[in-house]
Amino acid sequence: MNDLELDAFLRRALREDIGHGDVTTEAIVPPGATARGVVRVKEAGVVAGLAVAARVFALLDPESTWRAHAADGDWIGDVPRDAAEVAGSARALLSGERVALNLLQRLSGIATAAHRAVEAAGGRLTVLDTRKTTPGLRMLEKWAVRLGGASNHRFALFDGVLIKDNHIRAAGGLGEAVRRARAGVAPGLKIEVEAGTLAEVEEAVAAGADIILLDNMTPAQMRQAVDAIGGRARTEASGGITLANLAEIAATGVDFASMGALTHSAPALDISLKLI
Amino acid sequence: MNDLELDAFLRRALREDIGHGDVTTEAIVPPGATARGVVRVKEAGVVAGLAVAARVFALLDPESTWRAHAADGDWIGDVPRDAAEVAGSARALLSGERVALNLLQRLSGIATAAHRAVEAAGGRLTVLDTRKTTPGLRMLEKWAVRLGGASNHRFALFDGVLIKDNHIRAAGGLGEAVRRARAGVAPGLKIEVEAGTLAEVEEAVAAGADIILLDNMTPAQMRQAVDAIGGRARTEASGGITLANLAEIAATGVDFASMGALTHSAPALDISLKLI
Amino acid sequence: MNDLELDAFLRRALREDIGHGDVTTEAIVPPGATARGVVRVKEAGVVAGLAVAARVFALLDPESTWRAHAADGDWIGDVPRDAAEVAGSARALLSGERVALNLLQRLSGIATAAHRAVEAAGGRLTVLDTRKTTPGLRMLEKWAVRLGGASNHRFALFDGVLIKDNHIRAAGGLGEAVRRARAGVAPGLKIEVEAGTLAEVEEAVAAGADIILLDNMTPAQMRQAVDAIGGRARTEASGGITLANLAEIAATGVDFASMGALTHSAPALDISLKLI
Amino acid sequence: MNDLELDAFLRRALREDIGHGDVTTEAIVPPGATARGVVRVKEAGVVAGLAVAARVFALLDPESTWRAHAADGDWIGDVPRDAAEVAGSARALLSGERVALNLLQRLSGIATAAHRAVEAAGGRLTVLDTRKTTPGLRMLEKWAVRLGGASNHRFALFDGVLIKDNHIRAAGGLGEAVRRARAGVAPGLKIEVEAGTLAEVEEAVAAGADIILLDNMTPAQMRQAVDAIGGRARTEASGGITLANLAEIAATGVDFASMGALTHSAPALDISLKLI
Amino acid sequence: MNDLELDAFLRRALREDIGHGDVTTEAIVPPGATARGVVRVKEAGVVAGLAVAARVFALLDPESTWRAHAADGDWIGDVPRDAAEVAGSARALLSGERVALNLLQRLSGIATAAHRAVEAAGGRLTVLDTRKTTPGLRMLEKWAVRLGGASNHRFALFDGVLIKDNHIRAAGGLGEAVRRARAGVAPGLKIEVEAGTLAEVEEAVAAGADIILLDNMTPAQMRQAVDAIGGRARTEASGGITLANLAEIAATGVDFASMGALTHSAPALDISLKLI
Amino acid sequence: MNDLELDAFLRRALREDIGHGDVTTEAIVPPGATARGVVRVKEAGVVAGLAVAARVFALLDPESTWRAHAADGDWIGDVPRDAAEVAGSARALLSGERVALNLLQRLSGIATAAHRAVEAAGGRLTVLDTRKTTPGLRMLEKWAVRLGGASNHRFALFDGVLIKDNHIRAAGGLGEAVRRARAGVAPGLKIEVEAGTLAEVEEAVAAGADIILLDNMTPAQMRQAVDAIGGRARTEASGGITLANLAEIAATGVDFASMGALTHSAPALDISLKLI
Repeated sequence: MNDLELDAFLRRALREDIGHGDVTTEAIVPPGATARGVVRVKEAGVVAGLAVAARVFALLDPESTWRAHAADGDWIGDVPRDAAEVAGSARALLSGERVALNLLQRLSGIATAAHRAVEAAGGRLTVLDTRKTTPGLRMLEKWAVRLGGASNHRFALFDGVLIKDNHIRAAGGLGEAVRRARAGVAPGLKIEVEAGTLAEVEEAVAAGADIILLDNMTPAQMRQAVDAIGGRARTEASGGITLANLAEIAATGVDFASMGALTHSAPALDISLKLI
Repeated sequence: MNDLELDAFLRRALREDIGHGDVTTEAIVPPGATARGVVRVKEAGVVAGLAVAARVFALLDPESTWRAHAADGDWIGDVPRDAAEVAGSARALLSGERVALNLLQRLSGIATAAHRAVEAAGGRLTVLDTRKTTPGLRMLEKWAVRLGGASNHRFALFDGVLIKDNHIRAAGGLGEAVRRARAGVAPGLKIEVEAGTLAEVEEAVAAGADIILLDNMTPAQMRQAVDAIGGRARTEASGGITLANLAEIAATGVDFASMGALTHSAPALDISLKLI
Repeated sequence: MNDLELDAFLRRALREDIGHGDVTTEAIVPPGATARGVVRVKEAGVVAGLAVAARVFALLDPESTWRAHAADGDWIGDVPRDAAEVAGSARALLSGERVALNLLQRLSGIATAAHRAVEAAGGRLTVLDTRKTTPGLRMLEKWAVRLGGASNHRFALFDGVLIKDNHIRAAGGLGEAVRRARAGVAPGLKIEVEAGTLAEVEEAVAAGADIILLDNMTPAQMRQAVDAIGGRARTEASGGITLANLAEIAATGVDFASMGALTHSAPALDISLKLI
Repeated sequence: MNDLELDAFLRRALREDIGHGDVTTEAIVPPGATARGVVRVKEAGVVAGLAVAARVFALLDPESTWRAHAADGDWIGDVPRDAAEVAGSARALLSGERVALNLLQRLSGIATAAHRAVEAAGGRLTVLDTRKTTPGLRMLEKWAVRLGGASNHRFALFDGVLIKDNHIRAAGGLGEAVRRARAGVAPGLKIEVEAGTLAEVEEAVAAGADIILLDNMTPAQMRQAVDAIGGRARTEASGGITLANLAEIAATGVDFASMGALTHSAPALDISLKLI
Repeated sequence: MNDLELDAFLRRALREDIGHGDVTTEAIVPPGATARGVVRVKEAGVVAGLAVAARVFALLDPESTWRAHAADGDWIGDVPRDAAEVAGSARALLSGERVALNLLQRLSGIATAAHRAVEAAGGRLTVLDTRKTTPGLRMLEKWAVRLGGASNHRFALFDGVLIKDNHIRAAGGLGEAVRRARAGVAPGLKIEVEAGTLAEVEEAVAAGADIILLDNMTPAQMRQAVDAIGGRARTEASGGITLANLAEIAATGVDFASMGALTHSAPALDISLKLI
Repeated sequence: MNDLELDAFLRRALREDIGHGDVTTEAIVPPGATARGVVRVKEAGVVAGLAVAARVFALLDPESTWRAHAADGDWIGDVPRDAAEVAGSARALLSGERVALNLLQRLSGIATAAHRAVEAAGGRLTVLDTRKTTPGLRMLEKWAVRLGGASNHRFALFDGVLIKDNHIRAAGGLGEAVRRARAGVAPGLKIEVEAGTLAEVEEAVAAGADIILLDNMTPAQMRQAVDAIGGRARTEASGGITLANLAEIAATGVDFASMGALTHSAPALDISLKLI
């Protein structure tokens, strides 16, 4: 994670919530007042974003101090538990609380979802995220996925090749699409192609694809595809994957399963900041 | 909604996903190719964000055209249904698809959650959102809340007064906190105070608070509070409010109920872009 | 005031005045040279902006030191007087001087104008500013107004409701305009309506407006309006208010008087930076 | 003037005033409503900023139309007079009105002050502005000075050499300071030096200064300085120059007189936008 | 190439060169004057950047027109030749000329260098660029490389894996470094490792590296390495590669040769804008 | 040089190369690891940019330390030589290396080219740069020119007057162009005019130009021009100036010679960062 990018993001987030000023706090709390608070995890899950929350308060009050009692990526099962403690300007704590918690809760929710998926997969495949992230938060959300134990798919359109049916149609065929991609992209990028049928899987292997995305296949079809490929390419299951069917999918022998829900639908984890 | 702010946000979102370029599309799809696609709603809910998706494609291809078959805020019950159609540069459609959908799905998810809450409340109270939004997306997420039929609480720390226990402690008492707020903020802002007990409710009324936030009270306590206030202030229920207990809370006579889950935990609505 | 916003503003201001470099200073003053200067108030008034000037020099030379001999908001009657002392890189002092002084002089001018207005009102009404501020400087100019002892009206279009005749016309009537506003804005915002005649004042009260702006009324008309309202709403005098007529207006019983001249026409206070 | 810079400035100004949205207008005025308004000059002066106001509305509503009845720089003596007409989205007109007027009024105030100074000088010297402008608005304020008929001094620290006493002290003497400046800056920049006494004037001429700033001299001293210089350098009067003494100063034979008050203390010109 | 990114870059470039205004042009050329100019290539080479130059003028004058007589990537052997024609505001043409030419000349220089390298390689290996680009111009410079017929290596640190000796040392061994990379990065990225000796080459192959960078080897050593690898990985020659030795290196059987000089030392191509 | 501008530039450069993260380094090197490296100059030349490289590492790791063994502007003749040493986070060193070196190599290449030109001129004229710099890097490239001992021409279009043939044509004559420039620009700017023939030189002198740019003249023509001018203006040789003909041009008596190649075609100096 790039800290300079993180700071730029947090400045925008603080501008969004504080703007020209926190009218309640400025009217009531004197500038010199200090306070102390604890970050309390109130629901079992993987905590993710403590380093981000620390940075929020450091931006608002460079003199503030932060003491972590847990590390990002830790599973917190015994709740409520205080995961960190922050001390500094009372105004900074009150004004930064919401941005810090909004991020902590969302990232911990994602890390927890990733953790559950990895457990469900039982180590038989690699759970991947997707590009179905919140616009503006991809760096953080993909970091949360890793903290939860899952892995990242390509970050964006600029760092990975994934040929979909529309690309294939535009190229006039799967083989031609693969050829164009191979010729046009950096040598360090593998070529991944989407395939929805066994025939397309065969075509993809023949064209020399490195990874084949098995799109919306049933577990039975996946198994057939894996068998047909016979190790000539890696395989990714995609579409309709849930905690409920991950074990069954893992049993088909696919290498990866990608789940958009890790980032687009993970409920927030219940975490609060308690001034003490 | 401020369109200049929207454009600035979308430019950042597109930079995040496209960066220096969409390597797959640029390698495979020729610059001049055109395409046409439909936005397909595949799960019942309130569609929200069509105007945003339209703007994504307009930024990537100013010559692209957009035809809406539904309006933002419409309930789409009979799915799948095509809510809009876009035509333009094939590269623009392929490269902008994910940003457009990520926003459409999230905003529609929020609007749908808001719609459900409003239904559950049965018109007996006003359902409000909170500041528990995704950093960077507040303008859009609060717009989605309105599209779903619910109402917005204050936008941020700069446009509303909400005195919490920490403010009260810093001021040395609820009355003093209200007095400071009244003196320090613009005359157009009402004063809202958090109260957790009936005694605090009484103190808030006596101090002249305009709105009293009933924090984590049971419905029975809320009813007592409403009775005690007797119309001298408006009341907001907050904490632990779900679709399941909204009707019961509405029956207590509170004016507002605020729900963080509308924005922090609404699952994405299933919407896709199908090139045709 | 949000310090992160202040820094962003000051960086832009320094970019405007220094650009790629201060050609005179860089050609003449060696990089290692140090200097010391005093901020000298040469004209009686309320000093405002010392904290801002301190930040200008801190941005240019993080090692520089600043010692305040007066606080922002102090009335400096016995002039010339040294309000602060700065020491650090001679280049930083020379290059930052103009930006620091331009802000100090303008903000002190505004604070002084606010102070004079508050004195003229004699405590019988609250003096308010308006949105007639310099684009880009509103946060600072409204801070200066407060330092001078006056109060802030809404900050911007996003944090307060003020229904003007054009809104009324668009809604087809004052009552309908108030109803739409009440339904469409956050519950924490009061509804203020502009009224130019007694009939409109009555209509506004009947519609439930919280504050009524008495637009360009004579003191006699204001008094009639205040009597007619009888405490059912608060009142704001607006239009043509000067130091000369403030006392007369205050005597009418209006609650507020807003003065655009506080920010759009306050002459700068004479303040210099003297290297010693 | 650089239009790209102007747009960037106006976007920031509109963000400051509109933020996430104009809550009053959005609640009351429907999106499709249109309106028409006139820019009315209500106080005699030089109008400056019509092109800027036009750009404000174009940014908010690219379909809006603007018809000018006067040109920037025109003296409007017969008031009230409608200087322009704008038609477009009612929301855009209502939301952009304040930013447009704040700029129009300030810039027209500056142009008017410049015009008065030029008149007072009677063509016997060139009236210059200074760097005592509002941070962030220098490009616009210096444009207003030109529209009023006066001339611009250097824009900033990066495009002109002005050696002050502090530079001289750091260099260990006026001659050395001039020598360093000559050696260190681009050949296209003249060397201007501040002189407070006749002795310093002599030293500056001897050192080869192109322009000598006569700092806070009386008209009598200025005349002596001009005589002593005998055309070997140009001269600029600076410090304490007002409309009242400009004619007397002009009679001394100095080439330029610079007036900070043109930009830091010009009262706004009374201009309104009237929807019709 | 991402056009939104291009525009943002060009706005910064124009701000750098025009700032608050082009003082010469604004003083001399009236706002309404129009002009016409031709982009004249005066030295044989590959023209690259016409689309960029067109965009420069479009930003300064949206009404300007551009007619291309050559396409980016064309070899222009018969010089001088007019590659494009632009017509529009005379001010825009004069003020934008330098930014347009600075980019055109640099990009054409790079494309020409790439073209020469590809010719020297005779089709026996793929010529790659490196990350030795000008900070801020990478997207454009890598585009120029492609226009010249060579290929792009990874764009940046975020879209490709290249394990260097320092990474190996930090990991405690080449095998461990490869293992960590494989585990930590997206599945679509190949693993490239630097090897300076045959022993390291063997170790890299054994560790399963996809591509081996042969660092500063002689052609003889490269040939040995290629033989030893026997197709188990692809190979990249790097270090000290020039037009003079490219053919010899190509004969060794390596797949790729990367040349920093394509971007860091290509002399500008002589191109001018002639107003007609 | 303005350090705030430098930081803003370097943040953009680091965003370009690191983006969301350095995938290789983050996968292999643990966050807490530290490292030490030396900046090694491997080719004789003037080193320029050490202060910039130091800032790159300080931005990535504020705790990192930098020890310079040479100063920017030093001629390093005895190579290889270690010009500086940096110690800090291993991740920061690995991720920042390329940006630091890309700048160091380019700036040192420019400084070296400038140094060679100054030597060739033998002190008989002043060597100037031009505006033919890399978009975005002008501040740095012009600093490198000074470090190499040459001088800067105007920085940009906003800080110097250079009247070219197109301006003259638009004005309807050289005299009129000079008159307009004199009237329209700040008094601190000299007027430079381009002249291609002796007749134009005469016209320029008569019009009162301060500097005359002798455009693409032969040394013989330059000598004639210098003689004709007889000290009434300064002269700048421009067009086709190389190391080879500088001495001959210097002998003509022109004051300045401007060379675009200093910045647009200087090859990078060979410098590396060696972790130790």
